[in-house]
Amino acid sequence: MSAPPIDRAVPGLDAYLEEVEARLEQAVGRYPGLVADAGSEALSGGKRLRPLLVFLAAPIDRPPTVAAAVSIELVHMATLVHDDLIDGASLRHGRPPVWSAHGDQAAVTTGDYLFARAFAELATTGDVGAAAILAEAAVALSRGEALQRRQAYDPDTTIESYLERCALKTGKLFEAACKLAGGSGEFGLALGIAFQIADDILDCTGDAADTGKIPGTDLREGTPTLPLLLAAREDDVVRAALAGGPLEGALVRVAATSALEQSRKTALDYARRASEALDGTVRREELEALTHAAVDRTR
Amino acid sequence: MSAPPIDRAVPGLDAYLEEVEARLEQAVGRYPGLVADAGSEALSGGKRLRPLLVFLAAPIDRPPTVAAAVSIELVHMATLVHDDLIDGASLRHGRPPVWSAHGDQAAVTTGDYLFARAFAELATTGDVGAAAILAEAAVALSRGEALQRRQAYDPDTTIESYLERCALKTGKLFEAACKLAGGSGEFGLALGIAFQIADDILDCTGDAADTGKIPGTDLREGTPTLPLLLAAREDDVVRAALAGGPLEGALVRVAATSALEQSRKTALDYARRASEALDGTVRREELEALTHAAVDRTR
Repeated sequence: MSAPPIDRAVPGLDAYLEEVEARLEQAVGRYPGLVADAGSEALSGGKRLRPLLVFLAAPIDRPPTVAAAVSIELVHMATLVHDDLIDGASLRHGRPPVWSAHGDQAAVTTGDYLFARAFAELATTGDVGAAAILAEAAVALSRGEALQRRQAYDPDTTIESYLERCALKTGKLFEAACKLAGGSGEFGLALGIAFQIADDILDCTGDAADTGKIPGTDLREGTPTLPLLLAAREDDVVRAALAGGPLEGALVRVAATSALEQSRKTALDYARRASEALDGTVRREELEALTHAAVDRTR
Repeated sequence: MSAPPIDRAVPGLDAYLEEVEARLEQAVGRYPGLVADAGSEALSGGKRLRPLLVFLAAPIDRPPTVAAAVSIELVHMATLVHDDLIDGASLRHGRPPVWSAHGDQAAVTTGDYLFARAFAELATTGDVGAAAILAEAAVALSRGEALQRRQAYDPDTTIESYLERCALKTGKLFEAACKLAGGSGEFGLALGIAFQIADDILDCTGDAADTGKIPGTDLREGTPTLPLLLAAREDDVVRAALAGGPLEGALVRVAATSALEQSRKTALDYARRASEALDGTVRREELEALTHAAVDRTR
Protein backbone atom coordinates (compact mmCIF):
# COMPACT_ATOMS: atom_id res chain seq x y z
CA MET A 1 0.00 0.00 0.00
CA SER A 2 1.53 3.28 -1.03
CA ALA A 3 -0.37 5.35 1.52
CA PRO A 4 -0.74 4.14 5.08
CA PRO A 5 -3.99 2.21 4.95
CA ILE A 6 -5.21 3.46 8.28
CA ASP A 7 -4.77 6.45 10.43
CA ARG A 8 -1.46 6.01 12.22
CA ALA A 9 -2.87 8.15 14.98
CA VAL A 10 -4.50 5.05 16.52
CA PRO A 11 -3.27 5.30 20.10
CA GLY A 12 -0.21 3.18 20.70
CA LEU A 13 0.17 2.00 17.12
CA ASP A 14 3.22 4.04 16.20
CA ALA A 15 5.06 3.09 19.36
CA TYR A 16 4.17 -0.56 18.84
CA LEU A 17 5.40 -0.62 15.24
CA GLU A 18 8.62 1.11 16.27
CA GLU A 19 9.22 -1.49 18.93
CA VAL A 20 8.52 -4.23 16.41
CA GLU A 21 11.00 -2.68 14.02
CA ALA A 22 13.72 -2.46 16.65
CA ARG A 23 13.10 -6.02 17.80
CA LEU A 24 13.13 -7.32 14.23
CA GLU A 25 16.54 -5.77 13.74
CA GLN A 26 17.79 -7.24 17.00
CA ALA A 27 16.36 -10.66 16.25
CA VAL A 28 17.98 -10.85 12.84
CA GLY A 29 21.25 -9.19 13.84
CA ARG A 30 21.72 -11.27 16.96
CA TYR A 31 24.35 -13.50 15.35
CA PRO A 32 26.36 -11.30 12.98
CA GLY A 33 27.46 -12.80 9.70
CA LEU A 34 26.10 -13.62 6.27
CA VAL A 35 22.66 -14.78 7.42
CA ALA A 36 22.23 -11.69 9.60
CA ASP A 37 23.25 -9.41 6.71
CA ALA A 38 21.09 -11.20 4.16
CA GLY A 39 18.23 -11.46 6.65
CA SER A 40 18.47 -7.76 7.33
CA GLU A 41 18.29 -6.97 3.62
CA ALA A 42 15.25 -9.24 3.35
CA LEU A 43 13.57 -7.26 6.12
CA SER A 44 14.13 -3.87 4.60
CA GLY A 45 11.38 -2.45 2.44
CA GLY A 46 8.64 -4.70 3.79
CA LYS A 47 5.24 -3.11 4.31
CA ARG A 48 4.87 -4.55 7.84
CA LEU A 49 1.25 -5.22 7.07
CA ARG A 50 1.23 -8.27 9.35
CA PRO A 51 2.56 -6.43 12.43
CA LEU A 52 -0.05 -3.74 11.78
CA LEU A 53 -2.68 -6.47 11.61
CA VAL A 54 -1.45 -8.00 14.88
CA PHE A 55 -1.86 -4.65 16.62
CA LEU A 56 -5.28 -3.85 15.20
CA ALA A 57 -6.69 -7.35 15.68
CA ALA A 58 -5.96 -7.34 19.40
CA PRO A 59 -8.70 -6.43 21.85
CA ILE A 60 -8.38 -2.71 22.65
CA ASP A 61 -7.81 -3.36 26.33
CA ARG A 62 -5.22 -6.10 25.74
CA PRO A 63 -2.37 -4.93 23.48
CA PRO A 64 -0.44 -7.73 21.76
CA THR A 65 3.12 -8.70 22.62
CA VAL A 66 5.85 -7.33 20.39
CA ALA A 67 7.05 -10.92 19.95
CA ALA A 68 3.76 -11.86 18.27
CA ALA A 69 4.25 -9.35 15.44
CA VAL A 70 7.98 -10.04 15.22
CA SER A 71 7.53 -13.79 14.87
CA ILE A 72 4.81 -13.45 12.25
CA GLU A 73 6.90 -11.00 10.21
CA LEU A 74 9.99 -13.24 10.48
CA VAL A 75 8.07 -16.26 9.19
CA HIS A 76 6.74 -14.10 6.36
CA MET A 77 10.26 -12.94 5.50
CA ALA A 78 11.66 -16.50 5.69
CA THR A 79 8.99 -17.58 3.26
CA LEU A 80 9.72 -14.72 0.86
CA VAL A 81 13.43 -15.55 0.86
CA HIS A 82 12.71 -19.21 0.01
CA ASP A 83 9.91 -18.43 -2.43
CA ASP A 84 12.02 -15.92 -4.35
CA LEU A 85 14.71 -18.59 -4.66
CA ILE A 86 12.19 -21.21 -5.81
CA ASP A 87 10.56 -18.81 -8.28
CA GLY A 88 13.81 -17.26 -9.45
CA ALA A 89 12.24 -13.85 -8.74
CA SER A 90 14.52 -11.02 -9.82
CA LEU A 91 12.99 -8.22 -7.80
CA ARG A 92 11.67 -7.93 -4.26
CA HIS A 93 10.74 -4.58 -2.75
CA GLY A 94 12.45 -3.11 -5.79
CA ARG A 95 15.79 -4.77 -5.00
CA PRO A 96 17.55 -8.04 -5.86
CA PRO A 97 16.29 -10.83 -3.57
CA VAL A 98 18.67 -12.76 -1.30
CA TRP A 99 19.32 -15.61 -3.75
CA SER A 100 20.29 -13.11 -6.43
CA ALA A 101 22.48 -10.97 -4.17
CA HIS A 102 24.13 -13.76 -2.15
CA GLY A 103 23.52 -17.02 -4.00
CA ASP A 104 21.13 -19.95 -3.72
CA GLN A 105 22.88 -21.55 -0.77
CA ALA A 106 22.78 -18.36 1.27
CA ALA A 107 19.08 -18.00 0.47
CA VAL A 108 18.25 -21.48 1.78
CA THR A 109 20.21 -20.85 4.97
CA THR A 110 18.94 -17.30 5.49
CA GLY A 111 15.34 -18.48 5.20
CA ASP A 112 16.03 -21.25 7.71
CA TYR A 113 17.64 -18.75 10.06
CA LEU A 114 14.72 -16.30 9.88
CA PHE A 115 12.29 -19.15 10.40
CA ALA A 116 14.14 -20.47 13.45
CA ARG A 117 14.49 -16.95 14.87
CA ALA A 118 10.73 -16.55 14.57
CA PHE A 119 10.10 -19.51 16.86
CA ALA A 120 12.87 -18.41 19.21
CA GLU A 121 11.28 -14.94 19.52
CA LEU A 122 7.82 -16.33 20.10
CA ALA A 123 9.06 -18.76 22.74
CA THR A 124 10.13 -15.77 24.85
CA THR A 125 6.45 -15.05 25.48
CA GLY A 126 6.02 -18.29 27.41
CA ASP A 127 2.79 -18.92 25.52
CA VAL A 128 2.77 -22.46 24.15
CA GLY A 129 -0.53 -21.98 22.35
CA ALA A 130 1.22 -19.26 20.35
CA ALA A 131 3.93 -21.66 19.19
CA ALA A 132 1.25 -24.08 17.99
CA ILE A 133 -0.50 -21.31 16.04
CA LEU A 134 2.72 -20.17 14.36
CA ALA A 135 3.76 -23.75 13.56
CA GLU A 136 0.38 -24.46 11.98
CA ALA A 137 0.73 -21.38 9.79
CA ALA A 138 4.27 -22.37 8.81
CA VAL A 139 3.10 -25.84 7.81
CA ALA A 140 0.38 -24.21 5.71
CA LEU A 141 2.92 -21.95 3.98
CA SER A 142 5.03 -24.89 2.82
CA ARG A 143 1.94 -26.80 1.75
CA GLY A 144 0.83 -23.75 -0.22
CA GLU A 145 4.18 -23.56 -1.96
CA ALA A 146 3.97 -27.27 -2.83
CA LEU A 147 0.42 -26.80 -4.12
CA GLN A 148 1.62 -23.92 -6.30
CA ARG A 149 4.23 -26.26 -7.85
CA ARG A 150 1.52 -28.84 -8.54
CA GLN A 151 -0.75 -26.25 -10.15
CA ALA A 152 2.00 -24.73 -12.30
CA TYR A 153 1.14 -24.42 -16.00
CA ASP A 154 -2.28 -25.97 -15.43
CA PRO A 155 -5.04 -23.73 -16.85
CA ASP A 156 -7.58 -26.29 -15.61
CA THR A 157 -6.77 -25.56 -11.97
CA THR A 158 -10.14 -25.15 -10.28
CA ILE A 159 -11.09 -21.88 -8.60
CA GLU A 160 -11.56 -23.89 -5.42
CA SER A 161 -8.03 -25.21 -5.61
CA TYR A 162 -6.73 -21.68 -6.32
CA LEU A 163 -8.56 -20.38 -3.25
CA GLU A 164 -7.09 -23.21 -1.17
CA ARG A 165 -3.65 -22.07 -2.31
CA CYS A 166 -4.48 -18.47 -1.28
CA ALA A 167 -5.58 -19.71 2.12
CA LEU A 168 -2.41 -21.76 2.60
CA LYS A 169 0.07 -19.24 1.18
CA THR A 170 -1.41 -16.06 2.62
CA GLY A 171 -4.58 -16.58 4.60
CA LYS A 172 -3.22 -18.87 7.30
CA LEU A 173 -0.46 -16.44 8.31
CA PHE A 174 -2.96 -13.57 8.47
CA GLU A 175 -5.15 -15.88 10.53
CA ALA A 176 -2.21 -16.64 12.83
CA ALA A 177 -1.45 -12.91 13.18
CA CYS A 178 -4.99 -12.30 14.42
CA LYS A 179 -5.05 -15.37 16.67
CA LEU A 180 -1.71 -14.49 18.28
CA ALA A 181 -3.19 -11.09 19.04
CA GLY A 182 -6.20 -12.71 20.66
CA GLY A 183 -8.45 -11.60 17.81
CA SER A 184 -10.60 -13.32 15.18
CA GLY A 185 -8.78 -15.89 13.07
CA GLU A 186 -11.75 -16.00 10.72
CA PHE A 187 -11.30 -12.30 9.94
CA GLY A 188 -7.59 -12.84 9.25
CA LEU A 189 -8.13 -15.80 6.97
CA ALA A 190 -10.72 -13.98 4.83
CA LEU A 191 -8.59 -10.81 4.75
CA GLY A 192 -5.55 -12.84 3.66
CA ILE A 193 -7.43 -14.40 0.78
CA ALA A 194 -8.77 -10.98 -0.30
CA PHE A 195 -5.24 -9.62 -0.07
CA GLN A 196 -3.81 -12.44 -2.18
CA ILE A 197 -6.43 -12.04 -4.89
CA ALA A 198 -5.66 -8.30 -5.00
CA ASP A 199 -1.97 -9.19 -5.29
CA ASP A 200 -2.69 -11.51 -8.19
CA ILE A 201 -4.71 -8.79 -9.92
CA LEU A 202 -1.83 -6.36 -9.43
CA ASP A 203 0.52 -8.83 -11.10
CA CYS A 204 -1.64 -8.46 -14.23
CA THR A 205 -2.04 -4.70 -14.09
CA GLY A 206 0.68 -3.29 -11.85
CA ASP A 207 3.73 -1.28 -12.66
CA ALA A 208 7.15 -2.35 -11.40
CA ALA A 209 7.83 1.21 -10.23
CA ASP A 210 4.81 0.97 -7.92
CA THR A 211 4.89 -2.65 -6.86
CA GLY A 212 8.64 -3.28 -6.69
CA LYS A 213 7.99 -6.49 -8.62
CA ILE A 214 7.97 -7.30 -12.33
CA PRO A 215 4.38 -7.48 -13.61
CA GLY A 216 3.27 -10.56 -15.53
CA THR A 217 5.39 -12.83 -13.35
CA ASP A 218 2.54 -15.23 -12.69
CA LEU A 219 1.79 -15.69 -16.37
CA ARG A 220 5.46 -16.18 -17.20
CA GLU A 221 5.82 -18.80 -14.48
CA GLY A 222 2.54 -20.50 -15.27
CA THR A 223 1.08 -19.71 -11.86
CA PRO A 224 -2.68 -20.03 -12.30
CA THR A 225 -4.10 -17.04 -10.42
CA LEU A 226 -7.75 -16.09 -10.34
CA PRO A 227 -7.52 -13.40 -13.05
CA LEU A 228 -5.46 -15.68 -15.28
CA LEU A 229 -7.77 -18.67 -14.79
CA LEU A 230 -10.85 -16.57 -15.54
CA ALA A 231 -9.22 -14.91 -18.55
CA ALA A 232 -8.15 -18.34 -19.85
CA ARG A 233 -11.80 -19.35 -19.96
CA GLU A 234 -12.52 -16.47 -22.33
CA ASP A 235 -9.36 -16.32 -24.38
CA ASP A 236 -7.46 -19.24 -25.91
CA VAL A 237 -4.24 -17.23 -26.28
CA VAL A 238 -4.22 -16.58 -22.53
CA ARG A 239 -5.05 -20.22 -21.90
CA ALA A 240 -2.15 -21.38 -24.06
CA ALA A 241 0.22 -18.88 -22.41
CA LEU A 242 -0.79 -20.08 -18.95
CA ALA A 243 -0.09 -23.65 -20.08
CA GLY A 244 3.46 -22.64 -21.00
CA GLY A 245 2.86 -21.47 -24.58
CA PRO A 246 3.88 -18.14 -26.16
CA LEU A 247 3.47 -15.13 -23.86
CA GLU A 248 3.38 -12.53 -26.62
CA GLY A 249 0.48 -10.18 -26.04
CA ALA A 250 -1.21 -12.49 -23.56
CA LEU A 251 -1.13 -10.04 -20.64
CA VAL A 252 -2.83 -7.34 -22.70
CA ARG A 253 -5.51 -9.84 -23.65
CA VAL A 254 -6.15 -10.61 -19.96
CA ALA A 255 -7.07 -6.95 -19.52
CA ALA A 256 -9.52 -7.19 -22.41
CA THR A 257 -11.51 -9.98 -20.72
CA SER A 258 -13.90 -9.64 -17.81
CA ALA A 259 -11.39 -11.51 -15.61
CA LEU A 260 -9.98 -8.51 -13.74
CA GLU A 261 -13.42 -7.20 -12.86
CA GLN A 262 -14.64 -10.63 -11.79
CA SER A 263 -11.53 -11.16 -9.69
CA ARG A 264 -12.06 -7.80 -8.05
CA LYS A 265 -15.55 -8.85 -7.14
CA THR A 266 -14.29 -12.05 -5.56
CA ALA A 267 -11.70 -10.08 -3.58
CA LEU A 268 -14.42 -7.72 -2.38
CA ASP A 269 -16.54 -10.70 -1.42
CA TYR A 270 -13.74 -11.99 0.81
CA ALA A 271 -13.24 -8.49 2.20
CA ARG A 272 -16.93 -8.47 3.10
CA ARG A 273 -16.61 -11.86 4.79
CA ALA A 274 -13.65 -10.48 6.72
CA SER A 275 -15.72 -7.50 7.93
CA GLU A 276 -18.56 -9.77 8.95
CA ALA A 277 -16.22 -11.79 11.15
CA LEU A 278 -15.39 -8.72 13.23
CA ASP A 279 -17.11 -8.19 16.51
CA GLY A 280 -17.38 -5.21 18.82
CA THR A 281 -14.31 -5.97 20.91
CA VAL A 282 -11.83 -4.93 18.28
CA ARG A 283 -10.87 -1.85 16.30
CA ARG A 284 -13.60 -2.48 13.77
CA GLU A 285 -13.27 0.82 11.92
CA GLU A 286 -9.51 0.52 11.48
CA LEU A 287 -9.71 -3.12 10.47
CA GLU A 288 -12.36 -2.33 7.86
CA ALA A 289 -10.16 0.44 6.51
CA LEU A 290 -7.28 -2.02 6.37
CA THR A 291 -9.45 -4.54 4.57
CA HIS A 292 -10.48 -2.05 1.94
CA ALA A 293 -6.94 -0.84 1.54
CA ALA A 294 -5.82 -4.46 1.02
CA VAL A 295 -8.16 -4.82 -1.91
CA ASP A 296 -7.83 -1.29 -3.34
CA ARG A 297 -4.12 -0.90 -3.72
CA THR A 298 -1.45 -0.15 -6.24
CA ARG A 299 1.40 -2.01 -4.57
CA MET B 1 26.34 -47.34 13.41
CA SER B 2 25.89 -50.66 11.67
CA ALA B 3 25.08 -52.60 14.84
CA PRO B 4 22.69 -51.21 17.45
CA PRO B 5 25.01 -49.29 19.73
CA ILE B 6 23.33 -50.35 22.91
CA ASP B 7 21.29 -53.24 24.13
CA ARG B 8 17.79 -52.73 22.77
CA ALA B 9 16.56 -54.70 25.74
CA VAL B 10 16.57 -51.49 27.82
CA PRO B 11 13.06 -51.61 29.27
CA GLY B 12 10.66 -49.52 27.25
CA LEU B 13 13.13 -48.51 24.55
CA ASP B 14 11.80 -50.67 21.73
CA ALA B 15 8.24 -49.60 22.38
CA TYR B 16 9.29 -45.96 22.53
CA LEU B 17 11.21 -46.08 19.25
CA GLU B 18 8.30 -47.85 17.58
CA GLU B 19 5.94 -45.13 18.75
CA VAL B 20 8.37 -42.49 17.49
CA GLU B 21 8.53 -44.21 14.12
CA ALA B 22 4.76 -44.37 13.81
CA ARG B 23 4.38 -40.72 14.86
CA LEU B 24 7.08 -39.61 12.44
CA GLU B 25 5.19 -41.26 9.60
CA GLN B 26 1.95 -39.67 10.73
CA ALA B 27 3.54 -36.26 11.15
CA VAL B 28 5.05 -36.28 7.68
CA GLY B 29 2.13 -37.98 5.95
CA ARG B 30 -0.50 -35.77 7.51
CA TYR B 31 -0.93 -33.66 4.39
CA PRO B 32 -0.52 -36.03 1.41
CA GLY B 33 1.28 -34.70 -1.63
CA LEU B 34 4.77 -34.02 -2.88
CA VAL B 35 6.19 -32.74 0.41
CA ALA B 36 4.77 -35.70 2.32
CA ASP B 37 6.22 -38.14 -0.22
CA ALA B 38 9.60 -36.45 -0.36
CA GLY B 39 9.60 -35.99 3.42
CA SER B 40 8.82 -39.66 3.89
CA GLU B 41 11.74 -40.63 1.64
CA ALA B 42 13.99 -38.32 3.64
CA LEU B 43 12.94 -40.10 6.83
CA SER B 44 13.63 -43.60 5.56
CA GLY B 45 17.04 -45.05 6.32
CA GLY B 46 17.86 -42.67 9.17
CA LYS B 47 19.63 -44.18 12.14
CA ARG B 48 17.24 -42.56 14.66
CA LEU B 49 20.22 -41.83 16.85
CA ARG B 50 18.59 -38.67 18.21
CA PRO B 51 15.33 -40.37 19.29
CA LEU B 52 17.47 -43.04 20.99
CA LEU B 53 19.37 -40.27 22.72
CA VAL B 54 16.14 -38.60 23.85
CA PHE B 55 15.00 -41.84 25.46
CA LEU B 56 18.29 -42.65 27.16
CA ALA B 57 18.95 -39.10 28.36
CA ALA B 58 15.66 -38.92 30.25
CA PRO B 59 15.59 -39.66 33.96
CA ILE B 60 14.68 -43.34 34.42
CA ASP B 61 11.54 -42.53 36.36
CA ARG B 62 10.38 -39.89 33.89
CA PRO B 63 10.19 -41.22 30.30
CA PRO B 64 10.26 -38.54 27.62
CA THR B 65 7.32 -37.61 25.42
CA VAL B 66 7.18 -39.14 21.97
CA ALA B 67 6.82 -35.62 20.60
CA ALA B 68 10.26 -34.68 21.93
CA ALA B 69 12.03 -37.33 19.84
CA VAL B 70 9.76 -36.74 16.84
CA SER B 71 10.41 -33.00 16.78
CA ILE B 72 14.18 -33.44 17.13
CA GLU B 73 14.29 -36.01 14.34
CA LEU B 74 12.12 -33.82 12.08
CA VAL B 75 14.42 -30.83 12.54
CA HIS B 76 17.37 -33.11 11.80
CA MET B 77 15.69 -34.38 8.62
CA ALA B 78 14.72 -30.86 7.53
CA THR B 79 18.34 -29.83 7.89
CA LEU B 80 19.61 -32.83 5.93
CA VAL B 81 17.21 -32.07 3.09
CA HIS B 82 18.40 -28.45 2.89
CA ASP B 83 22.07 -29.30 3.46
CA ASP B 84 22.07 -31.95 0.73
CA LEU B 85 20.61 -29.36 -1.62
CA ILE B 86 23.19 -26.75 -0.60
CA ASP B 87 26.07 -29.23 -0.86
CA GLY B 88 24.79 -30.92 -4.01
CA ALA B 89 25.20 -34.25 -2.19
CA SER B 90 24.46 -37.19 -4.49
CA LEU B 91 23.85 -39.85 -1.87
CA ARG B 92 22.03 -39.93 1.46
CA HIS B 93 21.42 -43.18 3.30
CA GLY B 94 22.56 -44.85 0.11
CA ARG B 95 19.82 -43.19 -1.97
CA PRO B 96 19.41 -40.04 -4.03
CA PRO B 97 18.56 -37.10 -1.75
CA VAL B 98 15.35 -35.11 -2.16
CA TRP B 99 16.85 -32.40 -4.41
CA SER B 100 18.18 -35.05 -6.75
CA ALA B 101 14.97 -37.13 -6.81
CA HIS B 102 12.46 -34.27 -6.87
CA GLY B 103 14.33 -31.09 -7.79
CA ASP B 104 15.73 -28.10 -5.94
CA GLN B 105 12.40 -26.39 -5.43
CA ALA B 106 10.85 -29.47 -3.85
CA ALA B 107 13.87 -29.79 -1.56
CA VAL B 108 13.49 -26.22 -0.25
CA THR B 109 9.78 -26.74 0.37
CA THR B 110 10.13 -30.23 1.84
CA GLY B 111 12.74 -29.00 4.31
CA ASP B 112 10.45 -26.11 5.30
CA TYR B 113 7.56 -28.52 5.73
CA LEU B 114 9.54 -30.92 7.96
CA PHE B 115 10.81 -27.99 9.98
CA ALA B 116 7.33 -26.56 10.52
CA ARG B 117 5.94 -30.02 11.34
CA ALA B 118 8.62 -30.34 14.02
CA PHE B 119 7.37 -27.24 15.85
CA ALA B 120 3.76 -28.31 15.35
CA GLU B 121 4.47 -31.72 16.92
CA LEU B 122 6.34 -30.21 19.83
CA ALA B 123 3.59 -27.68 20.49
CA THR B 124 1.23 -30.59 21.23
CA THR B 125 3.15 -31.20 24.46
CA GLY B 126 2.04 -27.84 25.86
CA ASP B 127 5.59 -27.25 27.05
CA VAL B 128 6.74 -23.77 26.03
CA GLY B 129 10.25 -24.30 27.37
CA ALA B 130 10.54 -27.14 24.86
CA ALA B 131 9.70 -24.85 21.94
CA ALA B 132 12.42 -22.44 23.07
CA ILE B 133 14.97 -25.26 23.24
CA LEU B 134 14.10 -26.55 19.77
CA ALA B 135 14.12 -23.04 18.30
CA GLU B 136 17.54 -22.34 19.78
CA ALA B 137 18.89 -25.54 18.23
CA ALA B 138 17.33 -24.67 14.88
CA VAL B 139 18.94 -21.23 14.94
CA ALA B 140 22.27 -22.93 15.70
CA LEU B 141 21.86 -25.30 12.76
CA SER B 142 21.42 -22.48 10.27
CA ARG B 143 24.31 -20.55 11.80
CA GLY B 144 26.46 -23.68 11.51
CA GLU B 145 25.55 -24.03 7.86
CA ALA B 146 26.45 -20.37 7.26
CA LEU B 147 29.74 -20.82 9.13
CA GLN B 148 30.53 -23.83 6.94
CA ARG B 149 30.05 -21.62 3.85
CA ARG B 150 32.39 -19.04 5.31
CA GLN B 151 35.04 -21.63 6.10
CA ALA B 152 34.85 -23.33 2.71
CA TYR B 153 38.20 -23.80 0.94
CA ASP B 154 40.02 -22.15 3.83
CA PRO B 155 42.84 -24.40 5.10
CA ASP B 156 43.63 -21.72 7.70
CA THR B 157 40.34 -22.29 9.49
CA THR B 158 41.26 -22.56 13.17
CA ILE B 159 40.53 -25.73 15.15
CA GLU B 160 38.49 -23.55 17.48
CA SER B 161 36.36 -22.32 14.62
CA TYR B 162 35.96 -25.89 13.34
CA LEU B 163 34.80 -27.00 16.79
CA GLU B 164 32.35 -24.12 16.90
CA ARG B 165 30.91 -25.37 13.62
CA CYS B 166 30.59 -28.90 15.09
CA ALA B 167 28.78 -27.47 18.08
CA LEU B 168 26.39 -25.46 15.89
CA LYS B 169 25.76 -28.09 13.22
CA THR B 170 25.56 -31.19 15.43
CA GLY B 171 26.17 -30.50 19.10
CA LYS B 172 23.29 -28.11 19.72
CA LEU B 173 20.65 -30.52 18.39
CA PHE B 174 22.10 -33.34 20.54
CA GLU B 175 22.04 -30.88 23.43
CA ALA B 176 18.40 -30.07 22.67
CA ALA B 177 17.55 -33.78 22.51
CA CYS B 178 18.91 -34.25 26.03
CA LYS B 179 17.32 -31.08 27.38
CA LEU B 180 13.90 -31.95 25.95
CA ALA B 181 14.22 -35.28 27.74
CA GLY B 182 15.00 -33.53 30.99
CA GLY B 183 18.60 -34.71 30.90
CA SER B 184 22.03 -33.09 30.70
CA GLY B 185 22.51 -30.67 27.85
CA GLU B 186 26.22 -30.62 28.54
CA PHE B 187 26.42 -34.36 27.86
CA GLY B 188 24.53 -33.96 24.60
CA LEU B 189 26.68 -31.09 23.37
CA ALA B 190 29.95 -32.96 24.01
CA LEU B 191 28.54 -36.17 22.51
CA GLY B 192 27.42 -34.27 19.42
CA ILE B 193 30.86 -32.80 18.87
CA ALA B 194 32.47 -36.25 19.34
CA PHE B 195 29.95 -37.67 16.88
CA GLN B 196 30.68 -34.98 14.29
CA ILE B 197 34.45 -35.46 14.52
CA ALA B 198 33.92 -39.21 14.05
CA ASP B 199 31.74 -38.42 11.03
CA ASP B 200 34.46 -36.23 9.58
CA ILE B 201 37.05 -38.99 10.09
CA LEU B 202 34.72 -41.45 8.35
CA ASP B 203 34.51 -39.11 5.37
CA CYS B 204 38.27 -39.58 5.00
CA THR B 205 38.33 -43.32 5.56
CA GLY B 206 34.85 -44.71 5.05
CA ASP B 207 33.42 -46.80 2.29
CA ALA B 208 30.24 -45.73 0.48
CA ALA B 209 28.81 -49.23 0.91
CA ASP B 210 29.05 -48.84 4.70
CA THR B 211 28.31 -45.15 5.15
CA GLY B 212 25.71 -44.60 2.42
CA LYS B 213 27.67 -41.46 1.48
CA ILE B 214 30.50 -40.84 -0.97
CA PRO B 215 33.83 -40.65 0.89
CA GLY B 216 36.10 -37.68 0.32
CA THR B 217 33.13 -35.34 0.02
CA ASP B 218 34.55 -32.84 2.51
CA LEU B 219 37.83 -32.54 0.64
CA ARG B 220 36.06 -32.17 -2.71
CA GLU B 221 33.82 -29.46 -1.31
CA GLY B 222 36.62 -27.73 0.55
CA THR B 223 34.98 -28.29 3.93
CA PRO B 224 37.78 -27.92 6.47
CA THR B 225 37.21 -30.79 8.91
CA LEU B 226 39.52 -31.64 11.77
CA PRO B 227 41.35 -34.49 9.96
CA LEU B 228 41.75 -32.36 6.83
CA LEU B 229 42.97 -29.30 8.76
CA LEU B 230 45.49 -31.38 10.69
CA ALA B 231 46.66 -33.21 7.57
CA ALA B 232 47.04 -29.89 5.74
CA ARG B 233 49.52 -28.81 8.40
CA GLU B 234 51.72 -31.79 7.53
CA ASP B 235 51.17 -32.11 3.80
CA ASP B 236 51.17 -29.31 1.23
CA VAL B 237 49.29 -31.39 -1.34
CA VAL B 238 46.42 -31.84 1.12
CA ARG B 239 46.59 -28.16 1.97
CA ALA B 240 46.37 -27.18 -1.69
CA ALA B 241 43.50 -29.64 -2.27
CA LEU B 242 41.58 -28.25 0.69
CA ALA B 243 42.07 -24.76 -0.75
CA GLY B 244 40.40 -25.88 -3.99
CA GLY B 245 43.48 -27.23 -5.81
CA PRO B 246 43.91 -30.65 -7.46
CA LEU B 247 42.37 -33.53 -5.49
CA GLU B 248 44.45 -36.27 -7.12
CA GLY B 249 45.85 -38.54 -4.44
CA ALA B 250 45.13 -36.07 -1.64
CA LEU B 251 42.80 -38.35 0.33
CA VAL B 252 45.40 -41.14 0.39
CA ARG B 253 47.94 -38.63 1.69
CA VAL B 254 45.61 -37.65 4.53
CA ALA B 255 45.77 -41.28 5.71
CA ALA B 256 49.58 -41.12 5.65
CA THR B 257 49.67 -38.21 8.12
CA SER B 258 49.02 -38.35 11.84
CA ALA B 259 45.77 -36.43 11.31
CA LEU B 260 43.35 -39.34 11.60
CA GLU B 261 44.91 -40.58 14.84
CA GLN B 262 45.00 -37.06 16.29
CA SER B 263 41.39 -36.47 15.29
CA ARG B 264 40.38 -39.74 16.90
CA LYS B 265 42.04 -38.57 20.11
CA THR B 266 40.07 -35.33 20.03
CA ALA B 267 36.84 -37.25 19.45
CA LEU B 268 37.65 -39.50 22.41
CA ASP B 269 38.38 -36.44 24.49
CA TYR B 270 34.90 -35.07 23.77
CA ALA B 271 33.46 -38.53 24.47
CA ARG B 272 35.18 -38.42 27.86
CA ARG B 273 33.78 -34.95 28.53
CA ALA B 274 30.35 -36.30 27.65
CA SER B 275 30.72 -39.16 30.14
CA GLU B 276 31.86 -36.78 32.82
CA ALA B 277 28.73 -34.71 32.40
CA LEU B 278 26.52 -37.67 33.28
CA ASP B 279 25.16 -38.00 36.75
CA GLY B 280 23.55 -40.87 38.62
CA THR B 281 19.98 -40.06 37.66
CA VAL B 282 20.28 -41.29 34.10
CA ARG B 283 21.07 -44.49 32.22
CA ARG B 284 24.78 -43.96 32.58
CA GLU B 285 25.89 -47.34 31.29
CA GLU B 286 23.78 -47.14 28.13
CA LEU B 287 24.76 -43.53 27.45
CA GLU B 288 28.44 -44.39 27.80
CA ALA B 289 27.95 -47.30 25.39
CA LEU B 290 26.23 -44.90 23.00
CA THR B 291 29.07 -42.42 23.34
CA HIS B 292 31.69 -45.02 22.51
CA ALA B 293 29.62 -46.32 19.64
CA ALA B 294 29.38 -42.77 18.29
CA VAL B 295 33.16 -42.51 18.12
CA ASP B 296 33.92 -46.12 17.11
CA ARG B 297 31.80 -46.60 14.08
CA THR B 298 31.91 -47.52 10.45
CA ARG B 299 28.82 -45.67 9.31
